[in-house]
Amino acid sequence: MGSKYPKSLRISLPLWALILEIVFILVFFFFTSYEQPSEKSELLKTYPAFQDINVMLVLGLAFFKASLWRYTWSSVAFNLFSLAVGVQWAIILDGFLFNFSTRKFAINIHSIIKGTMSTMVVLISSGATLGKINLVQLIVMTLLEVTAFQGTKKLMQEFLKMYEYESLMQIHIFGAYFGVAAAWRLSESELNMAKEKERRAVASNLFTALGTLFLWIFWPTFNSVLLNSPGEKEIAIYNTYYALAVSAVTAMSFSAATHSNGKISMTHVHRATLAGGVAIGVSTIIIKSPWIAMVLGFSAGTIAVIGDKYLPRFFNQVIRLHDTCGVHATFGLPALLGRLIYILLIAGHNGWTNLSETGNKILISAGYLGLPMAMGLGGGVLTGLILSFNIWKSPHEAKYFDDQAFWEFPHLAVGF
Amino acid sequence: MGSKYPKSLRISLPLWALILEIVFILVFFFFTSYEQPSEKSELLKTYPAFQDINVMLVLGLAFFKASLWRYTWSSVAFNLFSLAVGVQWAIILDGFLFNFSTRKFAINIHSIIKGTMSTMVVLISSGATLGKINLVQLIVMTLLEVTAFQGTKKLMQEFLKMYEYESLMQIHIFGAYFGVAAAWRLSESELNMAKEKERRAVASNLFTALGTLFLWIFWPTFNSVLLNSPGEKEIAIYNTYYALAVSAVTAMSFSAATHSNGKISMTHVHRATLAGGVAIGVSTIIIKSPWIAMVLGFSAGTIAVIGDKYLPRFFNQVIRLHDTCGVHATFGLPALLGRLIYILLIAGHNGWTNLSETGNKILISAGYLGLPMAMGLGGGVLTGLILSFNIWKSPHEAKYFDDQAFWEFPHLAVGF
Amino acid sequence: MGSKYPKSLRISLPLWALILEIVFILVFFFFTSYEQPSEKSELLKTYPAFQDINVMLVLGLAFFKASLWRYTWSSVAFNLFSLAVGVQWAIILDGFLFNFSTRKFAINIHSIIKGTMSTMVVLISSGATLGKINLVQLIVMTLLEVTAFQGTKKLMQEFLKMYEYESLMQIHIFGAYFGVAAAWRLSESELNMAKEKERRAVASNLFTALGTLFLWIFWPTFNSVLLNSPGEKEIAIYNTYYALAVSAVTAMSFSAATHSNGKISMTHVHRATLAGGVAIGVSTIIIKSPWIAMVLGFSAGTIAVIGDKYLPRFFNQVIRLHDTCGVHATFGLPALLGRLIYILLIAGHNGWTNLSETGNKILISAGYLGLPMAMGLGGGVLTGLILSFNIWKSPHEAKYFDDQAFWEFPHLAVGF
Repeated sequence: MGSKYPKSLRISLPLWALILEIVFILVFFFFTSYEQPSEKSELLKTYPAFQDINVMLVLGLAFFKASLWRYTWSSVAFNLFSLAVGVQWAIILDGFLFNFSTRKFAINIHSIIKGTMSTMVVLISSGATLGKINLVQLIVMTLLEVTAFQGTKKLMQEFLKMYEYESLMQIHIFGAYFGVAAAWRLSESELNMAKEKERRAVASNLFTALGTLFLWIFWPTFNSVLLNSPGEKEIAIYNTYYALAVSAVTAMSFSAATHSNGKISMTHVHRATLAGGVAIGVSTIIIKSPWIAMVLGFSAGTIAVIGDKYLPRFFNQVIRLHDTCGVHATFGLPALLGRLIYILLIAGHNGWTNLSETGNKILISAGYLGLPMAMGLGGGVLTGLILSFNIWKSPHEAKYFDDQAFWEFPHLAVGF
Repeated sequence: MGSKYPKSLRISLPLWALILEIVFILVFFFFTSYEQPSEKSELLKTYPAFQDINVMLVLGLAFFKASLWRYTWSSVAFNLFSLAVGVQWAIILDGFLFNFSTRKFAINIHSIIKGTMSTMVVLISSGATLGKINLVQLIVMTLLEVTAFQGTKKLMQEFLKMYEYESLMQIHIFGAYFGVAAAWRLSESELNMAKEKERRAVASNLFTALGTLFLWIFWPTFNSVLLNSPGEKEIAIYNTYYALAVSAVTAMSFSAATHSNGKISMTHVHRATLAGGVAIGVSTIIIKSPWIAMVLGFSAGTIAVIGDKYLPRFFNQVIRLHDTCGVHATFGLPALLGRLIYILLIAGHNGWTNLSETGNKILISAGYLGLPMAMGLGGGVLTGLILSFNIWKSPHEAKYFDDQAFWEFPHLAVGF
Repeated sequence: MGSKYPKSLRISLPLWALILEIVFILVFFFFTSYEQPSEKSELLKTYPAFQDINVMLVLGLAFFKASLWRYTWSSVAFNLFSLAVGVQWAIILDGFLFNFSTRKFAINIHSIIKGTMSTMVVLISSGATLGKINLVQLIVMTLLEVTAFQGTKKLMQEFLKMYEYESLMQIHIFGAYFGVAAAWRLSESELNMAKEKERRAVASNLFTALGTLFLWIFWPTFNSVLLNSPGEKEIAIYNTYYALAVSAVTAMSFSAATHSNGKISMTHVHRATLAGGVAIGVSTIIIKSPWIAMVLGFSAGTIAVIGDKYLPRFFNQVIRLHDTCGVHATFGLPALLGRLIYILLIAGHNGWTNLSETGNKILISAGYLGLPMAMGLGGGVLTGLILSFNIWKSPHEAKYFDDQAFWEFPHLAVGF
């Protein structure tokens, strides 16, 4: 991969951004317009939820990824960068794939929210590739992943007849497996030399806690914003809240059980606390009692702690996979668990009297699960392959997890 | 208290959490159900306020308590833990004590908000015991204190005929005195050895400032969320805003007056800035002009600075009481002041023509004040006694205020 | 300027605050009352927007200014202090200048929002004078600048027949040039000795990023809150969002282009990311398509990066001006650009058929631009002059950018 000195992005980064923005602006010029505002202000009612989502993605996920003490700046700033690129591209694709009946597609607050949520797949995946790619590679990954996810959504809505809400709730599974697969292509050696830089600092972990708490607080908005009926929104809010409350308790308690001296791991707390919210995402409408949400939160918190404790060692040694922020334990495993419980609930709900119909529904549900996971894995491997090309001036492994490769530092910068 | 090595919670913590969550889930299974959602979406209107409250309690109070530079992780994470445990228990008690007309009590956003606010007493009290108890003790304290507060609320509503709003606004007095009393039982020596660890770092104080600012911003929501009439809500918002604006000015100015070189204490700023919001809590509906709110904010800011400067020395030396986060100055004194002014306003409002009725109202108001304070003190002493039992494996005093007693640290953790 | 030891504010600060608050309370007593609350709760609909604005000003701008690693406490706390003083004064002036038809003017949520937004000029300006003035000087500056801005608003509404919305949107231009002019009077030497203290730390920059992200998220609220029609609000939100998304991409990309090794400057990111929101402020209603907002965001991001890279050197050396937080590049330049594009759009909208009317409108627009800029510059120079009087016990230049001049520090304070 060439010299150990980080390669300059002085020309390529502004050039890419310039070309991209010119293309985006031209597409918006020819194909979009703002929706003619109605004076009834229905749309403005969604604005607070839009802000909650923004706080989650712009602030929450940014600081959630800021635990590497020498990579905090990049974690926070690159997150905003890929969101800003991704949301423009997602809105364009959304228009072309789903709303291209008229010559121009209308932009309103719902299309911006959906664009933002679709871009979340990139923000999740980039947790797995964190510290290993530069900004130009991040642009490429953002464009490819948003395209892949919008395509998957189209497939799910066309062939599996999913509702829009359900197809968007595949974000976690898609993002986690896409990221893990892409990261697999990027870490050829065992990344031992990066150990030192991966050390967590006390303060950087506090920033991560800040991000985690924002995600914890606003997750009920995330799980309810796309639902139309107020009743469904309410149930989604309650379910998510109960699942999160229980998984917060489980995360801290069971983290102690996995340590020889009963000490709690801050990393587990960050990751498993949110597991309840992830797991309940898909089933949030069909759960009608708090206790089911609590059971789900309990098992999600437990599985996230265990997955985070024992899986990375296996991944890193056996298949040489390095998942920087543990997106697999945070988003992948709880989402899988949520899917399994969803299938159980569907089966239980339909009862065993009409076996053929129940079996049918279970098969469809399994398809719901298999499709985004397969598309995520496939898209991730392909993207990882493309990202490993030499043309992107990717950082040398010795410069992984290091802000200094990308940022102008003051001469005598004071650390944490 | 045994060896200086921190005792492992590897078995007891997960066991406690497991038992507790199983009990909670069973109670929710047998006794609760979600309220049948109405399609009129009235409940969803309260959702933004619910989020404001969550930001205050989950983020604001967590970082408010994060000023001890070697205890930041525990301050932030244990706060979420006791909130998550407490809110489940508070909702159960609320159902049994106040809404048990039908066989199952309904859960909606109001019951979650009330549960969250009731749990705030624990988040306040744990500021006084901060750094001196472990997670198992925190579970015990949470269960006992929420029970004591719900019982006190029941008494206030049944015997003193208080409105629900008024009884919930006793949070600050109850929480502060409960915490102080519980902490009194925990600090047998003068805690000199802990001085070093109690040192404040520049960055950890900045996190505390972050928490304080969140509390400052959303306090008007806190003081208005439980009011029903929009007009009362508005007045509560304005009053709280004015009181907070003035106490922010007073806090910084008068802090300088208490230092020999006129320097400001960051601790005063954190604590006295919020005094206006605390003090106005109970009187927020009966104050009809901004200037009264401003006078209240002014005196609350002043009293909190003075209380924070001179009382701890007295407490620590004379009655051997160590109040880690100064909850007495932040929540106790301003709430007492607010009560006194409330009584004055009631007296002034009723005039001196009908002396017997006025006297009556003053007596009731004094009861309002006395009951939660007495219950808080009593409950706190009892809880402190229970917490000092050996079975909880409480940390040795040499390990007070030390994250390393509870957390798995990276080998060469970088500090602040 | 006397001794190098910081002068004590022990007497003067509390005295000033006391006098000020007594005057404020008296004015509020004689001249204000709360608006009689209507039971229709129309006002409460604005409350979430009010909170967004508060998060921007109390948290966002506070941490935005916290990048000087030895001046973080003052940056955050003094910001709240000047907001709390300023908002009381701004509401009083607002009542006397704009709503003094009846004997008492009514206070409602709109007057508090407008007061808060008018005070934002001080929060912007104090970014330029950051680290060079003490709290008493800050009180003086707050009172003078709010008065100057309210006067300018009155002029704009009376003589230029501006709408209230448009006149308030001059905040950025007025604040930036007022601050730059005031700072010019304060930095007599070249401030070389302050270099060391001006060093940026990794963690303090992360706090700055936190502030920047809050500003980025809630800027659409800021640009839409004063508009009345829901349709206009929607368009303002969309425009602002698109401008911000593009300027975030531009900021990071073009920062790399200005560095010899293609490294990104965190300072550019903080400042240029927000440029899109500032630039679009005045034109937010007349832009009807996303692509125009995107072009505006693109050019604003570019101009802010270039302005921040090359102008300070010129300012510092040629006219001996030291703009601590780069408010000129963050708020001044983008606002000027926004104005120019506004004039172009007005011209394009009116077409070239009716030349005289178009010319007329352009002239008025130029007046819109010239008046707040001239008033800002004039008021700033005057205020800078007054601030340089000896009576304020201003800190010696050797103590610039140093928290220790104002704050009581723990004996062995741990740094970042």
